[in-house]
Amino acid sequence: MAKLWGGRFGKDPDKLLWAFNASIGFDQRLFAADITGSIAYAKALERVEILTSEEATMITDGLAQVLQEFESGTFAFQPADEDIHTAVERRLQELVGPVAGKLHTGRSRNDQVATDVRLYLLLKIEVLSVLLRELQRAMVEKAEATLDAMMPGYTHLQPAQPILFSHWLMSFVWMLERDAGRLSDLKRRVSVMPLGSAALAGNTFGMDRAALAADLGFESISRNSLDAVADRDFIAEFLFWATLVQIHLSRLSEDMVIYASGEFGFLELDDAYSTGSSIMPQKKNPDPLELARGKTGRLIGNLVTLLITLKGLPSAYDKDLQEDKEPLFDTIDTLEIELPVIAGVIATLTIDRERMAATLQDELLATDLADYLVHQGVPFRESHHIVGQVVRAALARGCGLTQLSVQEYHEISPHFSEDVVEMLDFRAAVERRDVAGGTATSSVKAQIRKARAILEG
Amino acid sequence: MAKLWGGRFGKDPDKLLWAFNASIGFDQRLFAADITGSIAYAKALERVEILTSEEATMITDGLAQVLQEFESGTFAFQPADEDIHTAVERRLQELVGPVAGKLHTGRSRNDQVATDVRLYLLLKIEVLSVLLRELQRAMVEKAEATLDAMMPGYTHLQPAQPILFSHWLMSFVWMLERDAGRLSDLKRRVSVMPLGSAALAGNTFGMDRAALAADLGFESISRNSLDAVADRDFIAEFLFWATLVQIHLSRLSEDMVIYASGEFGFLELDDAYSTGSSIMPQKKNPDPLELARGKTGRLIGNLVTLLITLKGLPSAYDKDLQEDKEPLFDTIDTLEIELPVIAGVIATLTIDRERMAATLQDELLATDLADYLVHQGVPFRESHHIVGQVVRAALARGCGLTQLSVQEYHEISPHFSEDVVEMLDFRAAVERRDVAGGTATSSVKAQIRKARAILEG
Amino acid sequence: MAKLWGGRFGKDPDKLLWAFNASIGFDQRLFAADITGSIAYAKALERVEILTSEEATMITDGLAQVLQEFESGTFAFQPADEDIHTAVERRLQELVGPVAGKLHTGRSRNDQVATDVRLYLLLKIEVLSVLLRELQRAMVEKAEATLDAMMPGYTHLQPAQPILFSHWLMSFVWMLERDAGRLSDLKRRVSVMPLGSAALAGNTFGMDRAALAADLGFESISRNSLDAVADRDFIAEFLFWATLVQIHLSRLSEDMVIYASGEFGFLELDDAYSTGSSIMPQKKNPDPLELARGKTGRLIGNLVTLLITLKGLPSAYDKDLQEDKEPLFDTIDTLEIELPVIAGVIATLTIDRERMAATLQDELLATDLADYLVHQGVPFRESHHIVGQVVRAALARGCGLTQLSVQEYHEISPHFSEDVVEMLDFRAAVERRDVAGGTATSSVKAQIRKARAILEG
Amino acid sequence: MAKLWGGRFGKDPDKLLWAFNASIGFDQRLFAADITGSIAYAKALERVEILTSEEATMITDGLAQVLQEFESGTFAFQPADEDIHTAVERRLQELVGPVAGKLHTGRSRNDQVATDVRLYLLLKIEVLSVLLRELQRAMVEKAEATLDAMMPGYTHLQPAQPILFSHWLMSFVWMLERDAGRLSDLKRRVSVMPLGSAALAGNTFGMDRAALAADLGFESISRNSLDAVADRDFIAEFLFWATLVQIHLSRLSEDMVIYASGEFGFLELDDAYSTGSSIMPQKKNPDPLELARGKTGRLIGNLVTLLITLKGLPSAYDKDLQEDKEPLFDTIDTLEIELPVIAGVIATLTIDRERMAATLQDELLATDLADYLVHQGVPFRESHHIVGQVVRAALARGCGLTQLSVQEYHEISPHFSEDVVEMLDFRAAVERRDVAGGTATSSVKAQIRKARAILEG
Repeated sequence: MAKLWGGRFGKDPDKLLWAFNASIGFDQRLFAADITGSIAYAKALERVEILTSEEATMITDGLAQVLQEFESGTFAFQPADEDIHTAVERRLQELVGPVAGKLHTGRSRNDQVATDVRLYLLLKIEVLSVLLRELQRAMVEKAEATLDAMMPGYTHLQPAQPILFSHWLMSFVWMLERDAGRLSDLKRRVSVMPLGSAALAGNTFGMDRAALAADLGFESISRNSLDAVADRDFIAEFLFWATLVQIHLSRLSEDMVIYASGEFGFLELDDAYSTGSSIMPQKKNPDPLELARGKTGRLIGNLVTLLITLKGLPSAYDKDLQEDKEPLFDTIDTLEIELPVIAGVIATLTIDRERMAATLQDELLATDLADYLVHQGVPFRESHHIVGQVVRAALARGCGLTQLSVQEYHEISPHFSEDVVEMLDFRAAVERRDVAGGTATSSVKAQIRKARAILEG
Repeated sequence: MAKLWGGRFGKDPDKLLWAFNASIGFDQRLFAADITGSIAYAKALERVEILTSEEATMITDGLAQVLQEFESGTFAFQPADEDIHTAVERRLQELVGPVAGKLHTGRSRNDQVATDVRLYLLLKIEVLSVLLRELQRAMVEKAEATLDAMMPGYTHLQPAQPILFSHWLMSFVWMLERDAGRLSDLKRRVSVMPLGSAALAGNTFGMDRAALAADLGFESISRNSLDAVADRDFIAEFLFWATLVQIHLSRLSEDMVIYASGEFGFLELDDAYSTGSSIMPQKKNPDPLELARGKTGRLIGNLVTLLITLKGLPSAYDKDLQEDKEPLFDTIDTLEIELPVIAGVIATLTIDRERMAATLQDELLATDLADYLVHQGVPFRESHHIVGQVVRAALARGCGLTQLSVQEYHEISPHFSEDVVEMLDFRAAVERRDVAGGTATSSVKAQIRKARAILEG
Repeated sequence: MAKLWGGRFGKDPDKLLWAFNASIGFDQRLFAADITGSIAYAKALERVEILTSEEATMITDGLAQVLQEFESGTFAFQPADEDIHTAVERRLQELVGPVAGKLHTGRSRNDQVATDVRLYLLLKIEVLSVLLRELQRAMVEKAEATLDAMMPGYTHLQPAQPILFSHWLMSFVWMLERDAGRLSDLKRRVSVMPLGSAALAGNTFGMDRAALAADLGFESISRNSLDAVADRDFIAEFLFWATLVQIHLSRLSEDMVIYASGEFGFLELDDAYSTGSSIMPQKKNPDPLELARGKTGRLIGNLVTLLITLKGLPSAYDKDLQEDKEPLFDTIDTLEIELPVIAGVIATLTIDRERMAATLQDELLATDLADYLVHQGVPFRESHHIVGQVVRAALARGCGLTQLSVQEYHEISPHFSEDVVEMLDFRAAVERRDVAGGTATSSVKAQIRKARAILEG
Repeated sequence: MAKLWGGRFGKDPDKLLWAFNASIGFDQRLFAADITGSIAYAKALERVEILTSEEATMITDGLAQVLQEFESGTFAFQPADEDIHTAVERRLQELVGPVAGKLHTGRSRNDQVATDVRLYLLLKIEVLSVLLRELQRAMVEKAEATLDAMMPGYTHLQPAQPILFSHWLMSFVWMLERDAGRLSDLKRRVSVMPLGSAALAGNTFGMDRAALAADLGFESISRNSLDAVADRDFIAEFLFWATLVQIHLSRLSEDMVIYASGEFGFLELDDAYSTGSSIMPQKKNPDPLELARGKTGRLIGNLVTLLITLKGLPSAYDKDLQEDKEPLFDTIDTLEIELPVIAGVIATLTIDRERMAATLQDELLATDLADYLVHQGVPFRESHHIVGQVVRAALARGCGLTQLSVQEYHEISPHFSEDVVEMLDFRAAVERRDVAGGTATSSVKAQIRKARAILEG
């Protein structure tokens, strides 16, 4: 087998062990990162005169060809390719001969793979950052287009106070904005180059690691070789980041699944973002939202997987760390498709303003009634209690708050006067909440302006 | 697209949504279970005269051919095959024409997929059960072959008392035996047929579900159609089972990684179960053990993934449930390769009896010294304290317990007499622990006999 | 400090270390189990003549008094009581003098604590088993009392087919019935006695472990002392069991939170099981259901905590295992209060039959229409497509399926005749699903009978 | 009962429901944050003239007294105190009368509790930040004091290359330095004030939220009221942060447990940081390290608990969110004791330089031999293979690499000359790794200087 090791061994690995051990099935997607890293490393070896200029050119040209083979889909894996690093070096050897064997000088797969994964992830962070922004943009645009729509706001899924539909939608923009902030923070910690740490104790060939980092676009270099080869914190931090994004999408989905139910009927997904039933011809199901909710388990699972793998590991590299890649790749893949799907769902959904309006019940104005009493000088705690009695009176009569007479109000509390009816208006209730971050139209417009400024910035 | 639904829809699904939604990438391995289920269902439809005998034959012959295509690797998936059920029905339609459309009568993908997964898992339980037994067998055989080897037993990874190496190895046989018991218990709960529950409310064509269950080899039928289509407890229970197996393997691996270290040196893995380093030519690494330890994260992660997916789901089928399969399949795949690899590791490892023996230190006999005092009538709590002082005295002199003179013993406590030296023998200490489950040779032999009886039973 | 060790040490533990290390804060609830175990152990020591009959009596009388002190709340903990075992032994020593020091002969805290936790859990399993049955009973009774109520059944939270409210409620009875089965299975694995395993290698005093197990009510004894002192599988299995119970409650809660919303309005919680808002006087929130949903995180978290703790532990006892108790106790405490609260919620809730009936929409009958066509000989797949067109036609006209004329039906498919109107009846649709486990009244009655038989058995 | 609600209700809550629902058992530790928040809120109410200057003074004086009662331990909880907010307001009412009822004007427990938790956590972040620094400091000091000690570096727990003990210790300083960076990042996201969001839709009394935030020391204000009352991202992020710290401690602990074993013998814990056995008098166990490893389960569990609780929650406040506090508090409590304990362990441990040196085996120099060949112009891949053969030759002869003659070296490869012996020196091997982050003394000194600069900065 074309292993990067074996001189010391008396026999070949057991076939099942080989299959258990090999990572080529999932790490092959690192090919571009691996080759990029190797080209820079060849230059670094040239700088310290381990490679002649000629040898360096042979190697980098060879690597360029290997890259081209991968990109064109013509690269042929061999059964003995244990991992992507072995596959690339094996192919390079075929192309340029024994000089390929010089590329690994002073480098271990330990620092190599750590470097590859970081390069790969840095690219994916850029992609996900754009997709996140696009989802926010879809939300802001929809919020702007629906600014006139009022609906009940809920706590405990019980009707609480009237709000703007746009206010609801904008709440998710800000959740995602926190995600954007976290992504920007963690990127600095991904952009640290481990290369030059060798197996665990550091490179012996006088490498200029700072120059190598600059060539590869890393912001900084790792400070301790033992730590560098086994540090997977950056993956854990990314997986946690993705998990929070996913949780935000799960909350959005839960709301929308409920709002799209027949009984709420606030919104409808476009046919292009719905699916049907194999048995019930009438069904139109919000599958993408349910999947987005369901994939929360997967993404938390991926995070947990890595955290557990790291628990209690002895210092430096242990083979356990090979288990870091599949959860990372799966999480990236999930978000890369999910973010644009949800953006599509948002961009194409239609809302039913009449249905929303019809759902507004008088009881949503109870807090405003209590506020009314506050303005008459009644302490809020007492106001709250008085309005509780108003609510019971209405329940007992089987009517809404607007249907009680001023007389009835007055009997419950002498602080109620004629002008109480002015409080009993949904639109007014919305517009009174004009504090920063409130649901008043002016406040929501301010949110939209702020968000647009960030998204365009 | 060849969907099982769509009459009600105004347009086709968005392409990205389709990709997000499709399960064919991972559920195709259910082909045999799906076809088996459908053949039985066709018979059931014949029994209630929805299918004529001729139609039933056409369908079952067609399904047999589809199965043959899958098994020979000639089945051609179409881009529009949303899932395995659609793929099979689509192909059946191509083979037998419109009569294929009758097969789905009274059946929903909801009860169909729940049935398929159960059939699939029942088969895999058989496989894993055998692999588990084979690992236990490898352990019992190795334990029998090494009955003479003594080594330190550890608590807190500090030397505690001398034990037999075989006693250590047999401890894992019993862990796995608990796993075997749990597997047998959970199998009953997997072997429950949901078919006939239709989408959620039950079949309308007078199905004899008991007969259908008998045809498919299920032990019982589900009792409530709403529950039946959304019940994934059996997967969760299996994933938990697998997690405990994995934790047992992780503890075995941790011990063996430590025992295989240069400093312990108790055992060595066969070259066929070791791997090397790309930079350090001398390295021989216990990779399979580290992977077995590392995969604990993966298996706990898979369990957690499903549990979270199930949390707070509304009744009956929700699309979130599609997320049940990948963790299940990944866990099965992991154990199917890991169990025989570990069995191979055990069967081929060599132990270093001399090294083990050389590591036995006098302090391992401290408990026996305390027991000696107990036999002189000293309460154990006081004996313990006295021997603590003996240990300090030896530490202070920089010698072992056997190197203290009887005089010195006597000075610490008058209860020590000449015969104290008889207690200071490792073999005797081992053999004194002859209680049921103890480390004495006779007790370990009894364990081996019991295990053999179970494995051969 | 009153430690069970220390003779060998040159100084006392650091105070912060002591606090970090001590378990008395949470393991004191094991007092009864610890004393029960010690009383039986004293008898066993008497049988092998380590204790005279007199000494045994002194010790058991002393222990009885310690127990009485705990039960009456007069037991005085000392700062130096590291754990419950130390506290009990310290107090016993105060009561009966040096003979107390004989009780620990041949016993280690390792086998002692493993025994205590099992005894404690066995009792709690009995309690939880009863509470589970009571919750099932409340459900069955409510299901019986509401057999006449029809409501929409949902998949994907979209209206699917009409079902009985009782059918929905009974679906949870069967989930809990699986839990009851699992509890009964795992109890066998809890009822295994580790006592006699000593620290790790087995007891040296010729203990009859079977007799000891019989005295303590254990079904069997552990088979390997190394395994016995470190086996926490039984806790993991219990925590998994509790997690599944909790997930079932979370699904019930999710349904009920939605059904209790203003927009659904199917049911209302009793005032005694609802809470209000500090600011919104009208609010009546289904807090117990939200907590039951929310506590799923806690219970999965407890399971995960233990599984991770066990991962990769070296053989026999490691201090990490002390982390097993808090998740166990927290999970037990949670279910002990949650199960009766949910039973109270179910027993006292009121349903709104009119609202449920009013929510039944014609489209729920689409499957029945397709079934109708099947009976006309149309293959189901084609029937499904035809009814999809009927649904679109109704949507286009803005009417329900019952409002389309027979003529219109006939135009879509000639297979529709006058008698199609007979299919368009919710009650008939329910009653047609009379398969085992279906929603027909007869089927639900059969479920109730079966459940009653189990609960009374 | 002294509830903040209830006017609308017909009866009191069920007692068990009350117990299930109440949070006072764990949220009472928020008293100082709650009172601080209320004092600032009273000022804000005064600014908008809801409170007169006199009323504001009465309220703030009253609150100061309540605070004093908590701090002096004289605050008397009442059975009906549902949570800390109710308890404080109830007591305030007792002290200042009905004016207390004005404090809740425009405020909901939803924005109040979110504010309290953030204030509390901001304080704890300061504490943990200091404790983290102290642990790093203990490590740096120990690293400086042991710069002369060489030991084997391990990968896969197999001896790999010689390193400095200080290099190993410094690797943890950098892990913790990443933690310090993350803590500083997340603090910005904790320091966001939700107050003024009211129940979900925003305050109606014209609050100047920016001024209120300035009074309370928050860096910014939340941007959307719906999001603000239900945002627990900051807790999740903190719990993730703590989890990574814990994982770092678990890896340190694993190394040290192994290094402290009899077989390695590299280091010994001080008696003050060790504990003994109840049965084995000689035992000295590294309990704090095992607990630090074991508590990883707990901290991951706490993180998972919260993430699951958040999954799929409907918008705004749901009672599920009450489950956020216990995992947060438990994680804080754990680290507050664990960090100084581990710092104590590090500060007081002794290392055994002779034992470390004696463990260095020739095979640790294999990479240096390969590097030697590289300097002779042999491609590394070939050098690696040649040295593999050297290792096999030494294994076959049962000797070390230094015991092979130059002749034997030469026979394996003609590239080996007399000067090969110069490579076979552990100290030289260490000092050759003088790259940035390497194990050479100069590199480790540079690490120490850098760390000192950061810690003193």
